[in-house]
Amino acid sequence: MGEKNPENDVSAAVKKKKEIVIDLESFGETLYHQMEQGEFPWIKMPSRSTENIYYNPELRQYVLGERKVKRSTRNIRHIRPFTQLVWTAFFAHQLSHQRKTSTLRDVYYSAQAYNMSFKDQSESDNVITDLETVIGFAREDFNIFPEERSAIFGDLTIEYTVPGYEGRQMNMTSHPDGLMIGPALTYSEFVKTSADKVIAIEKGGLFTRFIEENVHKKFNALLVLTAGQAPRATRHFIRRLNKELALPVYILTDGDPWGMHIAMVIISGSANAAHLRGLTTPDAKWSGVWATDIVDYKLPTDPLTEVDMKRLQELQRDSRYKDEIWQREIKTFMKIRKKAEQEAFSRYGLTYIVDEYLPAKLEESA
Amino acid sequence: MGEKNPENDVSAAVKKKKEIVIDLESFGETLYHQMEQGEFPWIKMPSRSTENIYYNPELRQYVLGERKVKRSTRNIRHIRPFTQLVWTAFFAHQLSHQRKTSTLRDVYYSAQAYNMSFKDQSESDNVITDLETVIGFAREDFNIFPEERSAIFGDLTIEYTVPGYEGRQMNMTSHPDGLMIGPALTYSEFVKTSADKVIAIEKGGLFTRFIEENVHKKFNALLVLTAGQAPRATRHFIRRLNKELALPVYILTDGDPWGMHIAMVIISGSANAAHLRGLTTPDAKWSGVWATDIVDYKLPTDPLTEVDMKRLQELQRDSRYKDEIWQREIKTFMKIRKKAEQEAFSRYGLTYIVDEYLPAKLEESA
Repeated sequence: MGEKNPENDVSAAVKKKKEIVIDLESFGETLYHQMEQGEFPWIKMPSRSTENIYYNPELRQYVLGERKVKRSTRNIRHIRPFTQLVWTAFFAHQLSHQRKTSTLRDVYYSAQAYNMSFKDQSESDNVITDLETVIGFAREDFNIFPEERSAIFGDLTIEYTVPGYEGRQMNMTSHPDGLMIGPALTYSEFVKTSADKVIAIEKGGLFTRFIEENVHKKFNALLVLTAGQAPRATRHFIRRLNKELALPVYILTDGDPWGMHIAMVIISGSANAAHLRGLTTPDAKWSGVWATDIVDYKLPTDPLTEVDMKRLQELQRDSRYKDEIWQREIKTFMKIRKKAEQEAFSRYGLTYIVDEYLPAKLEESA
Repeated sequence: MGEKNPENDVSAAVKKKKEIVIDLESFGETLYHQMEQGEFPWIKMPSRSTENIYYNPELRQYVLGERKVKRSTRNIRHIRPFTQLVWTAFFAHQLSHQRKTSTLRDVYYSAQAYNMSFKDQSESDNVITDLETVIGFAREDFNIFPEERSAIFGDLTIEYTVPGYEGRQMNMTSHPDGLMIGPALTYSEFVKTSADKVIAIEKGGLFTRFIEENVHKKFNALLVLTAGQAPRATRHFIRRLNKELALPVYILTDGDPWGMHIAMVIISGSANAAHLRGLTTPDAKWSGVWATDIVDYKLPTDPLTEVDMKRLQELQRDSRYKDEIWQREIKTFMKIRKKAEQEAFSRYGLTYIVDEYLPAKLEESA
């Protein structure tokens, strides 16, 4: 560990940004070329309809199948979405070129500055997903970021690449409340770390507890706060920590079907992102709170609601949950009909979770 | 501006912590003293029932009236809540003494380690509010923090007082995604700033846009992300920026009744916190998005829903909203029956909000 993977040189993030600008430009050139040839501009892209989404056990994520859709401006019904797609590519190119970031909502409103009409934000969101599918990069790569922010803390030194901060380094222990994971961290280069693992945590209270109890030192860990369901930028960031620094990732959530699924989306992604790679961390481990932990540690619990039970039944049939540990935990939840929060360990004192539970679980998941 | 108010010396936060420990101890001593006198221990505290909550126009916040409640262990029905209160004071003392932070939920579970029974978290939350009322400090002051985190960015140098970071200084421009406002920032001392105002922003997307567009430099501003309704620790932090550094505060929210109320809670607090001082910033200004801005700037809008309209009617009768500007804006919302988001300005280009709207509004609110 320690030094970063030499395959990823210092300008990996910068290179990727350049690649995207080139891809966006070549998309535009293709259209020009088609028109020069006297053709109505058209594109072909993988279909994102449900029948074309498969779980790929090797990649351990959802992928799109072979079905393609063709959109041609020869077809009058395609002209509107086609134009919207081209405008979105233009706008993404502008963002990347000017190194400005934006949000899904901003794109929706920005369109109006160009007299591009989207009937609502879900229409523009959908066209942005089309663009992801066409160029094969996530929207964060062309500077469209989520509103939500999560955070990191621990001994990792990064180097910024964003305007005004180029070349400046920052250690992620500098601010004991944690550093927000926004565009600047997403585009940063990893310089060095003494950590040998990543612990992702669902809730702010526990994140702060771990910092106060020096979990980053005691366990040589980088701590990532997901703040509920991890935003896509954070999932991408966790993957980078795993791939570029070869750090194993452990995920701690509440002990209920919703917590399980927070872990699963970090591990295997969602069906909605079947057209993308680079957002999942297939080797990440869900380390707790397991249903079996609730039993073994005699945790204070709440009863599972009908909604919880229904969700467990859905997860039981979900291809991402086919492995033994998930099936075992789902069955145990259904049997005990109880759930427990991360904070439930405070029943044994505030530091029990750090002193007893965490070391036991890290050993168990390793 | 620039230098901090000399009234607040470098150890203000540390002093306050000591004061709270002393207050908690003297609460305990009072009980011992009562028992030594042969009395059943008792306390008197202001009633928090609705009939005892008044809006105080001078303080510009809700306050508790003259009514007191007495709780005595002579009364068998009082023994349970009394014991819970004493345990909570003990636990708060322990947290403050050991310099550990906790959350409302943690306290609920921690009680079980002491065989203190709360029937649910709302019972323990309520006893924590009792303790706030008894000692007159907010729970954050005795180390019980909310889960939610917001962030700050701009030229402010602070000095940490939390364990392991004592005396270390940090400038709030160090991390271009923003620094989380958690316990460490809450307890920090303000060292210096070149800013002459604070701009509080409801949404993460606009916070990032403002950083990218150098609003902190162009407008000499500290930027605070409230991330929706500002957590109490953030409201306290905004007040400190206003009082200790004498910085005026401007608040930017979505243009709808919910955005208005995000601003109002920063300005005048909530009825729930009528027993506390130190969470409000009465001189802070709601700078937009006003209903009249929607008209003047011809913003893209959505229709107000029935729920929105009902909320406006509630606000219209609320004593915090009696000033002319609020009444005018409420009436305008009701008349146009439309709302607009902060991002709606992107309709004139991504930087319009910074180049045109913000300077106009700062001048208008100054």
